[in-house]
Parts: sequence; C-alpha cells; structure tokens
Amino acid sequence: MNSICRKIYLELKPPGNGDMVADKDRIVRALKNAYKNVNISADTLKSSYKLLRDFDWKLTVTMIKKDYEWEIVRLERGNTTERNFGYAADLGSTTVIMRLLDLNSGDVLGEESIFNKQIKYGEEIISRIIHAKDNESHLKELQQCTLSSISDLIDSLHRTTGISPAECSILTIGGNTTMIHLLLGIDPWFIFHTPYTPSFNRCGFVQAKDLALPFNGLVYCYPSVANYVGGDIVSGLLASEMYKSEELGLYIDIGTNGEMLLGNNQFILSAAGAAGPALEGGISKQGMQAKPGAVDSVRIINNQIMITTIQAERPIGICGSGIVDLLAEMLLEGWIDFSGSFNPEKSERIVIRDNEYAVVYAWELESGSNEELLFTQTDIQRFMNTKAAAGTMVSYLLEALNVEPGDIQKVYIAGAFGTHINLESAITIGLYPDLPRERFVIVGNGSLEGAAMLLVNAALLSAAENIIEDIDYLSLGEATDFLTKMYAAKFLPHTNFELYPTVMEKLKVRRTNKTN
Amino acid sequence: MNSICRKIYLELKPPGNGDMVADKDRIVRALKNAYKNVNISADTLKSSYKLLRDFDWKLTVTMIKKDYEWEIVRLERGNTTERNFGYAADLGSTTVIMRLLDLNSGDVLGEESIFNKQIKYGEEIISRIIHAKDNESHLKELQQCTLSSISDLIDSLHRTTGISPAECSILTIGGNTTMIHLLLGIDPWFIFHTPYTPSFNRCGFVQAKDLALPFNGLVYCYPSVANYVGGDIVSGLLASEMYKSEELGLYIDIGTNGEMLLGNNQFILSAAGAAGPALEGGISKQGMQAKPGAVDSVRIINNQIMITTIQAERPIGICGSGIVDLLAEMLLEGWIDFSGSFNPEKSERIVIRDNEYAVVYAWELESGSNEELLFTQTDIQRFMNTKAAAGTMVSYLLEALNVEPGDIQKVYIAGAFGTHINLESAITIGLYPDLPRERFVIVGNGSLEGAAMLLVNAALLSAAENIIEDIDYLSLGEATDFLTKMYAAKFLPHTNFELYPTVMEKLKVRRTNKTN
Repeated sequence: MNSICRKIYLELKPPGNGDMVADKDRIVRALKNAYKNVNISADTLKSSYKLLRDFDWKLTVTMIKKDYEWEIVRLERGNTTERNFGYAADLGSTTVIMRLLDLNSGDVLGEESIFNKQIKYGEEIISRIIHAKDNESHLKELQQCTLSSISDLIDSLHRTTGISPAECSILTIGGNTTMIHLLLGIDPWFIFHTPYTPSFNRCGFVQAKDLALPFNGLVYCYPSVANYVGGDIVSGLLASEMYKSEELGLYIDIGTNGEMLLGNNQFILSAAGAAGPALEGGISKQGMQAKPGAVDSVRIINNQIMITTIQAERPIGICGSGIVDLLAEMLLEGWIDFSGSFNPEKSERIVIRDNEYAVVYAWELESGSNEELLFTQTDIQRFMNTKAAAGTMVSYLLEALNVEPGDIQKVYIAGAFGTHINLESAITIGLYPDLPRERFVIVGNGSLEGAAMLLVNAALLSAAENIIEDIDYLSLGEATDFLTKMYAAKFLPHTNFELYPTVMEKLKVRRTNKTN
Repeated sequence: MNSICRKIYLELKPPGNGDMVADKDRIVRALKNAYKNVNISADTLKSSYKLLRDFDWKLTVTMIKKDYEWEIVRLERGNTTERNFGYAADLGSTTVIMRLLDLNSGDVLGEESIFNKQIKYGEEIISRIIHAKDNESHLKELQQCTLSSISDLIDSLHRTTGISPAECSILTIGGNTTMIHLLLGIDPWFIFHTPYTPSFNRCGFVQAKDLALPFNGLVYCYPSVANYVGGDIVSGLLASEMYKSEELGLYIDIGTNGEMLLGNNQFILSAAGAAGPALEGGISKQGMQAKPGAVDSVRIINNQIMITTIQAERPIGICGSGIVDLLAEMLLEGWIDFSGSFNPEKSERIVIRDNEYAVVYAWELESGSNEELLFTQTDIQRFMNTKAAAGTMVSYLLEALNVEPGDIQKVYIAGAFGTHINLESAITIGLYPDLPRERFVIVGNGSLEGAAMLLVNAALLSAAENIIEDIDYLSLGEATDFLTKMYAAKFLPHTNFELYPTVMEKLKVRRTNKTN
C-alpha cells in the first residue's frame, strides 16, 4: 500500500519553554523527515489554530500526494488513522460509476452508478457540446449536471456503506477529454472542431470545495493525450500495466468511440475514432443498451437460434454482445456470407420485410403481441462499418510500427462492451485479431480500475503525468488510404483469410458437421 | 533584472496538419526549454481557448515565479511585453505604503500611503486582536479593512501613474506577523497569548482574486520568523543584504516594537520586544506622530534651545526625533545628568509644573494661546525605559554571540523613526552603540524596500524562504537577568562609560567650551 492519501497521527510537543514555532511549522516539522515537502491548504490553516489547542496537540493529519509536495487537507482530534477513505470514479458521457475505497486496506467498500445528468442535453456528446458553445450559462448547466451526478453518487455511497463524505478526502477520476472539460466548466467546443485541440490535457489537482463537491479534500483527473484519447484511456492503460511490460500489447476500448493503444514499456501509439452507437444497439431499430430484456447471447444449434436475455426477461431487443454473437453464428452456419449478405435458403428465420432480407432472432411476446424482433441486411451493413473501423485502426497501428498481428503478445479488452461480448464471436467476425486466446485479458472498466488503483498506489501519479508525453497519437482523419483499408476490413472476418486461421478452421468444422 | 513576474511574447504554431496539441500544452511547450515547470492558473485556462484563436496565436503570457514553477496568470493579444507592472507594499499596523514598479526597468513609478483602516478598531494592535478573538465576523471586518486599504492604494496609484490594475500582475508584501494573519483572515490571537505562537510563518502565494483584490495575479507575503519577527523584518533584512555579507551586522528597526537582528552570512540571531509608543511620542502629553507642527529637531546653542518643526509650521508637540535630540542636547549641556534628572540651575527653561521638573522646549503660539510645550521628568523616565529596552536587546544579542560592540561592522537602521532621528543624538543617549559613524547604514523603510526588490529579483524568493530557517530567535521574555541589564542601560548613555567614548569626548568638549 502506497496510498495517495495518508493519515498520520501526531503527538506534537506543545509550544513553550522557548519553543515558539508557528502552528503550521510545528505540524510540517513533525512530517518533514518522512515527507520532505509538506504544505497545508489555506482553508485547513484557517481552522488550525483553535483545533490544535482543542486537540491538546494530539491529532491526525490527512495528506494527499501532489506533484511536488504533500498537501494537508484535514486535521482531526486524536488518532483517526484507521478511518481513511477515498472515491474513484469513471466519468462517462452516459454513465458515471463511483467506488468508495478503504485507503488503509485497499478494499472496495461500495460501488454505485448513475446516468450522467448531462444526458438531458442530448444522449450524444456532440449535442451537449453544441448546447454549451459560446454560452456561459449553458456551459455552467452542463458543469452542474456533472457535479450533481457525482454528488448523488457520494450520497448513495454514504447510504450503502455508512461512510460519510466527512471521512473521505480524495476523488480520482478517469474521464474522456470532453467530460473533464465540462467538469471544470471549460468550453469543449474545439475538441470536436477542426483541428480538434482540447483546451488542456492536464487538469491536475482541484480543491473539492472549488467544485462545490461535498467533502474536504482534492479532486484529481487523469490527464488526456488528445481529443479522443482521454483520461479514461490513460487510466485504463495504467490499470492494464501494459506500459510497464516488455511485451507488445494492444489495448482496445470500444464504446461510443473506439480507442486503441499499441505498444509496450518503450513506446505507445494511440488511435481513436467514432465507433458510433452501433455497439450500443443504435444501428438497429430494435437495438438497445444492455438492459433487462436485451438479447445478450445467441447460438445457432441444429440450425435453430438459441438466445439468452439479460435478467432472463422476455426479449424486447438486442444489445451489442447479442449482435456480435448473432453475426458470428450466422457466418459460421452460412446464414450470411463473408460480405455479410443473407443466404435466405439456409433458414426459415431469414425473411423479407420492407423489401429487404432480415433474420427473426426472436419474438417480442409481451402483452399478447407477437412482434418479430428483426436484424436486417441494413443493420448488418451498419454494424460491419463499425467493426471495419475498429479493425482498420488496428491495421494502422500495426503498420505504423511495422509489426504483424502475431507479434501482439497481449490484447487488453476494456470497457463494458468488451467485457460482455463473447471473445470467440468477436474474433469470428474479425472485430479482434485472431490470436491465441490466452493472450486476451479482460480489463473491465479500465477507467474506473485505474482511478481506484491510483488511490492505493501514489506511484501512478507520476506514471500518468509522464506517460502522456510518451504516447504518440496517430490521427486517422488525415490518413489518405483509410477507405481502402476499411474496405478490406468490411468482410467477415476480413478479405485476407490468412489473418484468421482459427476462424477458417471453425468454419470448416461447422460446415463439415452439417453436411454429415 | 531577474523579475519575479515576466512577460513573454509567443507566436505559436496554430494546430493542424497532425499537430493537435492542447492549447495549454501548446503554450507550455513554447516555454518549457527556458522555464522548465510552467503552469496555468485555472481561471486563465478557462478563458484561453477563445483567446488563443482571437489572438491569432500571437500572444503575451505573464508568468510569476513560484517555489517550484512559473504560473501563467494572464494572456494578452499581441506583444505587450513593454508593459509589465507590479505592486510592492509595506503593510504596517499604522500605515500601509505601496509602490508601483515597472518590472522591465525596475523603476519606481509611484508611491502612495494610507492609514491602515484597521485603526478604527484600535490604534494599538492588541485592541484589534481582542476585537477579532473568537468572533468570525469581527475577524472578517479586520480582514476587509486590510484589503480595502490595499485596494485604495491601488486606486491611488492608478490615478497618479495612469497605470491600471489590469496591467499589474503581482503584489509583494512585507508585513508583521499579525498583519499577515489579518490579511488572510486568520485569527492572530495566539501571537499575543502565551506561548506566543503564530498560526503560520509562511504564507506563500495567494490568488489576488481569492482576496477580492482588483487585479489578476498573485499576492506574495514575506514569511515571518516568529511572533515579533515578522515578514516586514525579513523583507528589510533582504533589502539590507546583511545576510549575504561576511561582516557582522546589526539590524535595528524600532517602531511600535523594537526588532533587532545580529549576524552575517553564517548565522543570524533575532530579538524583539515592545518598544511601545514612546518613540511615537506617546510617552509625553504633548508627544505626537511625525506630522506638521511636530518638533523634529532640537539644538542647544549658547544655552538657548533652537527647534525646527515639520513643514516649518508652528509647534504643537514633539515627535520621536525631536525627543532624541532634546535629551542628547540636554545631556551634553548638563541640563540633565547621566540618570536623566534635571539640573534646574542650568537653564531658566527648566521649570516646575504639577510638582515636577520639566523643560519648556517651545510654546504653542496658535490662536493667541501661549501654552508651554513641556517635556517632564516623568516623560524622560518613560523614554529612558524604551531606550534601555532597545539597548538591552543589543546587549543580549552580543552576549549570546560572545562578541563586543566594537565587533559590529555595520549597523543597519530601518524604519521611519530610525530614518528621521539624528544619528549623533541617538548615540549620545545610548540608543545605538558608539561605533565609527561610517558603519551606520540608513535602510529606510526596509519592509517596503525588500518587497520592491523581490519584484525585480526573483532570487530573493528562495532567499526569504531559506533564511527564516536559519534565523534563531532569542526570547527575551524568558531571560532571567533582563532587569539587571536593563538597569545598566537606563543611564545616559550607559552605566559603562567606556562603551561610549565619543560621547565622553563630546561631553568634555562642550563643557570645556562652556567654561571658556
């Protein structure tokens, strides 16, 4: 344990007998040998002179490690070192998730999530940015939504864990570049407007009080590398530890955007692009987020579709992991070909609706209706665009470093989508490279993991601030052969079958079984 | 010139063609080689994204040197490097004096002073401290008075120099420990209550905005060493450069309190004590501050008293420099003896009033009155107490270092009182040691000088922060033989005549002349 926020119990010698050292210096003096540069925030200082005497010079200081110094953010009577807590958050544009950790043990005591209240200004981030543009009061509204989301989570964690914000001294945040701009009330317009430069990458430490958050202490946001490669990705990169390994690693986080990193402890190259709502189900009329009733897995056995739904509720639509499974299974069964076109003769589930082919992957049985749940030819093409964009990003990164897919020793899969999709299916459709399965590591919510790790490992602070200097950003928007490359990736799994040997093998096996 | 506040003109490469570096990093990158750690204050950052584009990427940044980094506090269109200004202030408990400097040339463009508005809560600092004790709103009132005094001076300097606070980026302050506590709104009670420990010695940098001062930038206050040895003394010490010299120096600042430093570039010992209102004329019914009409110099020639008054107005009282002259001349002429007792036969000006001897040093002639202006035997005793306290402090310091008065190579006289009194008279009455006159240096308002020097010499910042570690504080309140020592100093010039050879010589000459 090397927590970024420490509590130290001090029994100070009271002044007198010629020792007239000032209160502040008396505290700093007691900590100087072990912590070198120690400072006290102005607000803490204001209250100190009475407290020290009320506490009979026996007190616990709470200190946070900053770039060059430790900052004391709290003084408490007696020895409270056993109660030292902090928050870690993933500040997503859709969802905000927060954990409360015991900073002595590193234990996670609670986790809560909430929809980002910014959503009322638009589900898509760009609507919110346009809302805030050149309008100081709109910008403030969006900042307030962000802060109110965080405050609500602090309340929830108080209720569920019984630990009050009065005992928490730090909040670490992984968030994308736009979210951090809005958190600080800084107009994010130029992040999305050519030439796509954020106002800042490093946010550093901010007083919680300056953001009107309900605890005494500091807020730290991971720095970003560029517009699309935000603090959430930097946080996940730190959580994955890929930056410390000699092995070549590929970090993939596909959500609303797709962000990728390729590298090791020598160098890291990044790329990003809009993955769009495809993976959250937005490509299909019946596509949906991963909520109860969403089809989340699909198998085709004996030419019959078998589905599961979230919380085993009656099906009402399909989410990202269901779509990936559906396409992979249809490809393996020959219901669709390598270009994604339906082979209608392969199943009665393939039907014509509104002048195009579609697969009836389930029926919505709610309230006596018998409506078909369809995934259409158009849906497939849309999804394949997204999948191709992701695949093309990987190709670019590999080409830029002049390495082959097989050189990748570890693939780190981050994000909710990556956590839930079936790895075999994702490889089958060519979303991920076809590599030995033991090379894949599911990171989970990398942004949240990295934020939580920082709470208990102060060394990540300088790692984060240094690493963003070393990450090169490959701007795909300016690549001239993007469309050519994307076209190649627009097949299932790819125009170059040799890149997907295990998929070819599976195809052979399945089709052999069938003809038997 | 090594100003603590610099303006740098930048012509930044606009983003584009693959260069998507964030605005903040774009600025920092341009300064990194020359200035290493550069940061931008949050408020400056908030406005930056529009400004950079409005300015067509040609801008002037204003940076202030802090402990570990340069902080950018302002962005301006085009090249404004020629206009770079700052304030320096002596924050005294009676008077606040402020200068406006051109930070490119070091020229002082204006100086204004004002009575500290805290005075309405008591002329004596202790009344104000009691007013603020345990009362948050009273404490705020005193803080407001302090800030309002500073704001008024900024206004005055704007009027007299034509330079607006919008072009000033820094305010450096020398002030005593209590004044700096009140400036920040921190209760100073324990500075004056046993065991006399301030809440803090180091104030560091504060955003002007956080104090609601009317300029964008930072406020820096010199640190204090102890309750009585404040930032004003540290400032003066830096101005005197005594801390850099190999020669043993004595720094004397006698005002409401007496503060003294003895040392050189190896060590510095400090002592302080209440000098009381004696030197501001408060010991005598007709004593007064150095205002028009105050008797400020006295000579006795041919047994006749010759006086001058401030601004040559009709006499209405006597100020510190007049008192020192009066006593010195009366001693040399034998009107008083070594114990300060009147020899009434020496002059008809020595009269009996209210049952004690007194000297009629002038008549108040205003509006037909003919009132005697008197300095009584009681006034003399009171003044001699003050003079003895100062002399005893010097003795203590010398004894603590085991050196003789003659070892002092330089005597730095700081403060308004020290600037105005006659050096010969001060030595004659034993207020200063009897040393070759060329060893005396009149520093003037050391607190103001040091604050102004910091504006144009950033090296003083670390010098100040380091030096307070090296100054030892000699607590006179705990010395057991103080009264014995003080008794010895209660003679004019001293019980030990050998310490005052030139005074003995003068006495001999004067009395010889007289008998001729």
